[in-house]
Amino acid sequence: MRPNILLFGDSITQESFRSGGWGASLADAYSRKADVVLRGYGGYNTRWALFLLHHLFPLGLTKPPVATTIFFGANDAALAGGTSERQHVPVEEYKENLRKIVRHLKECSPTMLIVLITPPPIDEEGRMEYARETYGEKAMTLPERTNETTGVYAKGCVELARELGVRSINLWSKMQETDGWQKKYLRDGLHLTAEGNAVVFEEVVKVFKEAWLDASEMPYDFPHHSEIDGKNPEKAFQQKCL
Amino acid sequence: MRPNILLFGDSITQESFRSGGWGASLADAYSRKADVVLRGYGGYNTRWALFLLHHLFPLGLTKPPVATTIFFGANDAALAGGTSERQHVPVEEYKENLRKIVRHLKECSPTMLIVLITPPPIDEEGRMEYARETYGEKAMTLPERTNETTGVYAKGCVELARELGVRSINLWSKMQETDGWQKKYLRDGLHLTAEGNAVVFEEVVKVFKEAWLDASEMPYDFPHHSEIDGKNPEKAFQQKCL
Repeated sequence: MRPNILLFGDSITQESFRSGGWGASLADAYSRKADVVLRGYGGYNTRWALFLLHHLFPLGLTKPPVATTIFFGANDAALAGGTSERQHVPVEEYKENLRKIVRHLKECSPTMLIVLITPPPIDEEGRMEYARETYGEKAMTLPERTNETTGVYAKGCVELARELGVRSINLWSKMQETDGWQKKYLRDGLHLTAEGNAVVFEEVVKVFKEAWLDASEMPYDFPHHSEIDGKNPEKAFQQKCL
Repeated sequence: MRPNILLFGDSITQESFRSGGWGASLADAYSRKADVVLRGYGGYNTRWALFLLHHLFPLGLTKPPVATTIFFGANDAALAGGTSERQHVPVEEYKENLRKIVRHLKECSPTMLIVLITPPPIDEEGRMEYARETYGEKAMTLPERTNETTGVYAKGCVELARELGVRSINLWSKMQETDGWQKKYLRDGLHLTAEGNAVVFEEVVKVFKEAWLDASEMPYDFPHHSEIDGKNPEKAFQQKCL
């Protein structure tokens, strides 16, 4: 009965239901109106995401999501030659993979609201600190991700969205508008703090509202309790449930 | 593909995806393994919940939830004659309504894990403070809920669960085992703080584990990224996706 909003992405999507997470905040904001479906795959890049595409979004679904966020790139942008090379995908292929994902979703449902989200910026120093804390002396001494390279992927993502006529959120740019973004928004140089999650939540809600998927304008699935007459509850439920 | 875990209840369920909420924590714990579906209806009692039953759980569903939490009673236990009288349901009817809900779910799926959760205890003083802060001089001077009365509903809920052979969580008793439960677990004498939410989360996970619905024992829907060979990703996806 309720529409689905699907969140497709990597670890920043997968962990979005932790305390203060942007996915949980969306589920709360759309509570009684839409279901938020979590499809986050930690460590995945767009190349691997393609293997899941037809399984998560089979053609002919009777109820495809009304909206999907596509939030990859943080792993694609791992440096070739770095310690996370296994996850690296060249930027041109990243764009091509995103194009395939969008094209498939459009085929599933031409009216689906599709929102491409760029990776967040990288705090290289924070990333190094995290590596030292986690791996001690064995820690990498060269960065596995740089902010500059991730910025190239963010630019590619936004360009592609414009080309395909779908909406996008340039998280890489947006976060860097705020002084001290490195520690304010990122907890290990890459993943989001509660404040970083709040930025994603606000940006997603803003785009959803622009596209008329505004929780405050959507109907409740069933009557609000204040509309139910204690002595004659049937009346409130008549239209939807009797 | 993933099983569904459905949370059916009143406001304490509806707001369970706020920061630190027990529903969001469940979604996070079962991420990549099961979907947590939010069906919380603020202000609802079991009498009104019955109107939704066949809509939320139609017979013949191809994929009924593998587990459902039923978490009502906080509104049923509003005092007859108090300011929330509209929501009051006598305890015998409350038990009868819960019985109808359980019976219907069993009909939907004989293997569904059903967990009845009692209402939390009431901090009467906290409830008064909240009323004064919210309504000022117009605030009620008599309690609309008492801890003793809510305890009668909690007892009825647990007895019914035993009679029907389904699992239950006596939240009313559990919370009162901790000194200072009034402010520690309840933010307005009735609804849960983050610490109160953590108690519900822990208790639900405990019951789920006892019933073999243990996230750590459940398979990932798709390969963990560490299992994917960067040079030959097809291999990891072969079993599930090719």
